[in-house]
Amino acid sequence: MQMKFFAHIERLNWELGYCSAKEQYPDKFIPAIVPGAVQLDIAREANYPDFNYADNYRLFRWMEDIYYTYRARFNLPVLKNNERLWFISKGIDYQFEIFINHELIHEQEGMYVPVELDLTSYLQEVNWIEVKVMPVPKRHSFPEDKTQASHVTKPPVSYGWDWHPRLIPLGVWDDTYLEIRSESYVNEVNVGYNLSDDFSVANIHVHAEAIVKNESDYCWELKDADGNIVLVEKGRMQPILDIEIALNTPKLWWPHDHGVPYLYSSCFYMFGNGGGVVQSIENKIGFRKVQLVMNEGAWDEPEAFPKTRSVPPIQIELNGRKIFAKGTNWVNPEIFPGIITRDRYKELLDMAVATNFNIVRTWGGAVVNKASFFELCDEMGIMVWQEFPLSCNQYPDDTEYLALLEFEARAIIKRVRQHPSLVLWCGGNELFNSWSKMTDQSLALRLLNALCFELDRNTPFIPTSPIFGIAHGNYVFRWKGQEVFDMMNKSHHTAYVETGMPGISPLETLERIIPLNQLFPPEPGTAWEDHHAFRAWDANDETWLCRDIITEYMEPAETIEELIVQSQLLQSEGYKAVYETARRQKPYCSMVLNWCFNEPWPTAANNSLIAYPSVPKPALAAVREACRPLCVSAVIHKFVWFEREQFTTDLWFLNDTVEQLSGLSVIVSLHAADEEIRISEWQVPEVKPNQHVAGPTITFKLPLWHVPLFKLILEVRENAAFNAAYTLMYRAHKN
Amino acid sequence: MQMKFFAHIERLNWELGYCSAKEQYPDKFIPAIVPGAVQLDIAREANYPDFNYADNYRLFRWMEDIYYTYRARFNLPVLKNNERLWFISKGIDYQFEIFINHELIHEQEGMYVPVELDLTSYLQEVNWIEVKVMPVPKRHSFPEDKTQASHVTKPPVSYGWDWHPRLIPLGVWDDTYLEIRSESYVNEVNVGYNLSDDFSVANIHVHAEAIVKNESDYCWELKDADGNIVLVEKGRMQPILDIEIALNTPKLWWPHDHGVPYLYSSCFYMFGNGGGVVQSIENKIGFRKVQLVMNEGAWDEPEAFPKTRSVPPIQIELNGRKIFAKGTNWVNPEIFPGIITRDRYKELLDMAVATNFNIVRTWGGAVVNKASFFELCDEMGIMVWQEFPLSCNQYPDDTEYLALLEFEARAIIKRVRQHPSLVLWCGGNELFNSWSKMTDQSLALRLLNALCFELDRNTPFIPTSPIFGIAHGNYVFRWKGQEVFDMMNKSHHTAYVETGMPGISPLETLERIIPLNQLFPPEPGTAWEDHHAFRAWDANDETWLCRDIITEYMEPAETIEELIVQSQLLQSEGYKAVYETARRQKPYCSMVLNWCFNEPWPTAANNSLIAYPSVPKPALAAVREACRPLCVSAVIHKFVWFEREQFTTDLWFLNDTVEQLSGLSVIVSLHAADEEIRISEWQVPEVKPNQHVAGPTITFKLPLWHVPLFKLILEVRENAAFNAAYTLMYRAHKN
Repeated sequence: MQMKFFAHIERLNWELGYCSAKEQYPDKFIPAIVPGAVQLDIAREANYPDFNYADNYRLFRWMEDIYYTYRARFNLPVLKNNERLWFISKGIDYQFEIFINHELIHEQEGMYVPVELDLTSYLQEVNWIEVKVMPVPKRHSFPEDKTQASHVTKPPVSYGWDWHPRLIPLGVWDDTYLEIRSESYVNEVNVGYNLSDDFSVANIHVHAEAIVKNESDYCWELKDADGNIVLVEKGRMQPILDIEIALNTPKLWWPHDHGVPYLYSSCFYMFGNGGGVVQSIENKIGFRKVQLVMNEGAWDEPEAFPKTRSVPPIQIELNGRKIFAKGTNWVNPEIFPGIITRDRYKELLDMAVATNFNIVRTWGGAVVNKASFFELCDEMGIMVWQEFPLSCNQYPDDTEYLALLEFEARAIIKRVRQHPSLVLWCGGNELFNSWSKMTDQSLALRLLNALCFELDRNTPFIPTSPIFGIAHGNYVFRWKGQEVFDMMNKSHHTAYVETGMPGISPLETLERIIPLNQLFPPEPGTAWEDHHAFRAWDANDETWLCRDIITEYMEPAETIEELIVQSQLLQSEGYKAVYETARRQKPYCSMVLNWCFNEPWPTAANNSLIAYPSVPKPALAAVREACRPLCVSAVIHKFVWFEREQFTTDLWFLNDTVEQLSGLSVIVSLHAADEEIRISEWQVPEVKPNQHVAGPTITFKLPLWHVPLFKLILEVRENAAFNAAYTLMYRAHKN
Repeated sequence: MQMKFFAHIERLNWELGYCSAKEQYPDKFIPAIVPGAVQLDIAREANYPDFNYADNYRLFRWMEDIYYTYRARFNLPVLKNNERLWFISKGIDYQFEIFINHELIHEQEGMYVPVELDLTSYLQEVNWIEVKVMPVPKRHSFPEDKTQASHVTKPPVSYGWDWHPRLIPLGVWDDTYLEIRSESYVNEVNVGYNLSDDFSVANIHVHAEAIVKNESDYCWELKDADGNIVLVEKGRMQPILDIEIALNTPKLWWPHDHGVPYLYSSCFYMFGNGGGVVQSIENKIGFRKVQLVMNEGAWDEPEAFPKTRSVPPIQIELNGRKIFAKGTNWVNPEIFPGIITRDRYKELLDMAVATNFNIVRTWGGAVVNKASFFELCDEMGIMVWQEFPLSCNQYPDDTEYLALLEFEARAIIKRVRQHPSLVLWCGGNELFNSWSKMTDQSLALRLLNALCFELDRNTPFIPTSPIFGIAHGNYVFRWKGQEVFDMMNKSHHTAYVETGMPGISPLETLERIIPLNQLFPPEPGTAWEDHHAFRAWDANDETWLCRDIITEYMEPAETIEELIVQSQLLQSEGYKAVYETARRQKPYCSMVLNWCFNEPWPTAANNSLIAYPSVPKPALAAVREACRPLCVSAVIHKFVWFEREQFTTDLWFLNDTVEQLSGLSVIVSLHAADEEIRISEWQVPEVKPNQHVAGPTITFKLPLWHVPLFKLILEVRENAAFNAAYTLMYRAHKN
């Protein structure tokens, strides 16, 4: 996020050693890659097999309970004019000590608080820096699952989840280097602003904190996207500096589907005695006002006494415009966050934009993403719902945990708050649910609310998801006899933020993870189960392959290829129904996010739209269609239709844009095998900005076909880009 | 709350003057009583008629927009050994400036932040202290109602409510005096503690802040209720002093119906150079742990997907025991808070204890009570739900209001937090309702949550009342055809915290406020309307006399006495049903509070149980019966029963105590005129601690009686204190 001008010495040659007791020193060191993970270094050195294959991840289990020592040797650099040498790490996972020349100079618990240590006074001609990493923190008396992480800020997902093996990273996970700083230096620049009600003025406040040992000057510039300087402020540097300055007619930041995600640059320069720049700090600034406002109609609920309040607000209003949020849940894209690169984020975020998503919920079970993630979201116009690293656990009220959480949360908020893509803070995932048993009274959540209020009050905060009015689930095509179509059509929620639909992974993925002799038919107790096709979710041994649901609709597959087609059809049509139904419930409903977008390792079956690392499932294209800002849509009442049955659907035209359209007409037809039956044509009334149009109900008695599937096709005469198509099942009566 | 040892000079002779512009100085002064209100001084001097009578309160309206000057003359007191003279006021309502010898030394907006000013350097032989009070703060563009107070911390109730005339106090409202302080003095002593999980140890932290100009020693003592010193800590005084000390086997504070409200005394002494005590600060400490835990059964709701959280917790757990909270809403006992005395609080709180109430909700529309209120609740074992002074308005997110609210809220929290009676902080009244339109995102409520977390995190906080799961309303005996019996029997709430039942005031009250020629029959447009008998509540011109409801059941009254009997019967039986039904819904339901206990002036009809000042309505006795910790109870299904109809009821035995009872039997009988029909006898199974027993359903075909009323009587053979009786209406069929 912030580029400092100082010289970095990044080419430290790190080594890693380990031993079984804290007081021991490793007798052997192996090459280490930083950032990375201790597990990856050991596996590389010892030629471990790919942990993605079969149950190889189990080989890593012993590494949880070991003490690790990173070390690097470096020569005394040339330090001139009172320069000093600093050790900087943006993240070390999780509890660690730092030594310089074998002297302990820092101890820390927490992977999000950056480390900045002045090494100068300890330096010799040849120096050793060492980072000692403690074993995985665990509540040892708890079951071997996420609850072992219920007292720490480490992502609980790595302790095992229904789509994540138990494989718990440790080690240096973010940029780490030596830095030569001048004696005086700027520690922090934070650019805040308030937009006037009509968005015509941004009242900017620049807050800088610095160590000032000698008199020096500063200059702060705001540049537009073309590099033109639009504001300048200069003066004498102070330890604490506050600048108030107004920008007239700021260009606003918008999500990509509503405008341009316009970014300015804030450039803060500190000058030395000689007048030269000794430090520059640059970061992007986007001007937007974000609020959560009550969903339309929600104030009217409940109508009757006894009066209680309505559901809390979840409608995003950005720059005064109500935005229908279409997006997805983002999970850690790698098991080991240390190896996530900007390019890795970018390939996934490019796919999100291409899928017409304007928001991602970065789920609280996983790691808080690195700076480049937020930079990309800023640039690409993707809104971010950011959760703190709490999920599905009962995090305690005790003083020790609260102190740790505050330490880490302050660092997270200060790092993320300046990104215009940030639209929502959330305390964590499913903390108010019966399996976590936290409540509004839980001190951890009151603390997070208070910290967000203190440091970033203009960004909304919710304690957890779901809160009342918002749905998580369901996660399958059919549950207790109810199909996703019926479930969604009958639901009444302000937001659907975790609706899942499992699909098998593509063949190329399956072949990478499942031994050939286990590939077909899939069975529990094999690599299929290690990769979450069976017994992944409690109380249902068919998740996530869901053979039971597939065979309710289709003949048992005879090949793996056939099974893939069957599973992916249900996933595609199911997800389409989720997105389109939620959209049709606008404006009471204001958001739809599926569970989930990506996955950190190759699963055999999962609710993800993309198989690891970036292989789209067919459902991704289906969702892309369902999320087009402008398109026609049909209500699907059920999946299976019969000969002579009255087929029925209701037509809609969906508009999430500020455009106004008129003169559209929609041809409705059914297609089975080669046959096409035109059953209706709808003259669409005027489509108003940001409003959908509900159209007629269409009914048609189905003929006798000799096919298992048919399609409902909606063609918009004037613009084929608005067309829609649905695949449904057909059965001729046996008697 | 805190007694300081310093000499007070309380006998200042205050005078009051007023004028119409800020820059003017009054040309005339009248005697003033401090604390009090400017209106009372003017009315006393000018012989205004009683504002309680008819519509005399209207005569006070002009006083809203005037500038007031309090002044007092005093001679230079003898100041020895670096002593200094301070001006202290615990509360000035609302915006004011303070002058000493005509020099402006202080400006303030806010009635809760105490004023402490060192006058010493301004003193002459003869001195004038002046307090200039600004006009009533109003949003002048808003309607002339509570919304005019939606940007201030002044109680909105005084701008007009459905039981409160528009009459807006101004002036010095709490203790105000000159104080001679030593140069060194203690500003604040706060005694916090954490109880161990088994309540066997109180880990106490004493935090003191002082101005220390010379070396001096302190001594802190904790004394038990008998005055025995149980802990002592001594040392050298510091500007900031923190003492950590443990008390073993602390006696716990309990509400009066669960144990002894045991109080210790914290005594902090500062010694002068000569070793003598120069200041002592004493306050009471009670040890209790209070939490809001989930109501029993609430985690199971909702059972189905889509999963959302259950209702938030409102079950009070005190010292590990779930307490069923029975109580009432407390409103300002006087229109002018300046005249409220400890005795005034005590007479009302004595009535609350006698009514078997263990909690009062001090409603956010009214003033935050003075110290003596909380001291009495501590001593008497009454739990306090304390609201911040926000009610039924949309308080803004703007910086100015938030700064004011923080200023005042910090003072409120610091003053109240040390009271063991405090069990719940609440942001204010009905802020999430459609008429106020605040939400979880409102910055004022996030601020209050953050401040309570910072200053008093061990006391629960809710943003407003109601929150989801909790009921406010209904407020009448019959609403849209549904009686209170049916409404309560069918309700499913975790708490009923504002259920009302209107009743006419006793004759002595009516005769005091209504001109004789208007007394009967009551009519709109008369003093009855000024005193809220008609058109008090929007959209219903019969509130609160509710003639329409009374005449649904009874022949029109022919005298005022008859009307009083009719109205008070409905109030008594209605309230009894509210309390008993809510109690029978334990443990899912954990609280029942009626709207409301008292009233600040004599209304003609109101939901209050007590007419101003302290005249009980018959409903008070009915509620006392309904709230007995141990009693028998009958489900009332409806109010009117007919000849030959199957009368039906269900029996319960209620137990909110830790006692266990067995061998009880209940005789059930109906009484009409002189006739008594014994219809059943119930052998009550064992009554377990803190649990109710559901008994049998009783049915009985009603005979022909020639009476309009009959009684259902439940007699407990073994203990008449557990008996219950219900009055119901009877109608013989006409044909």
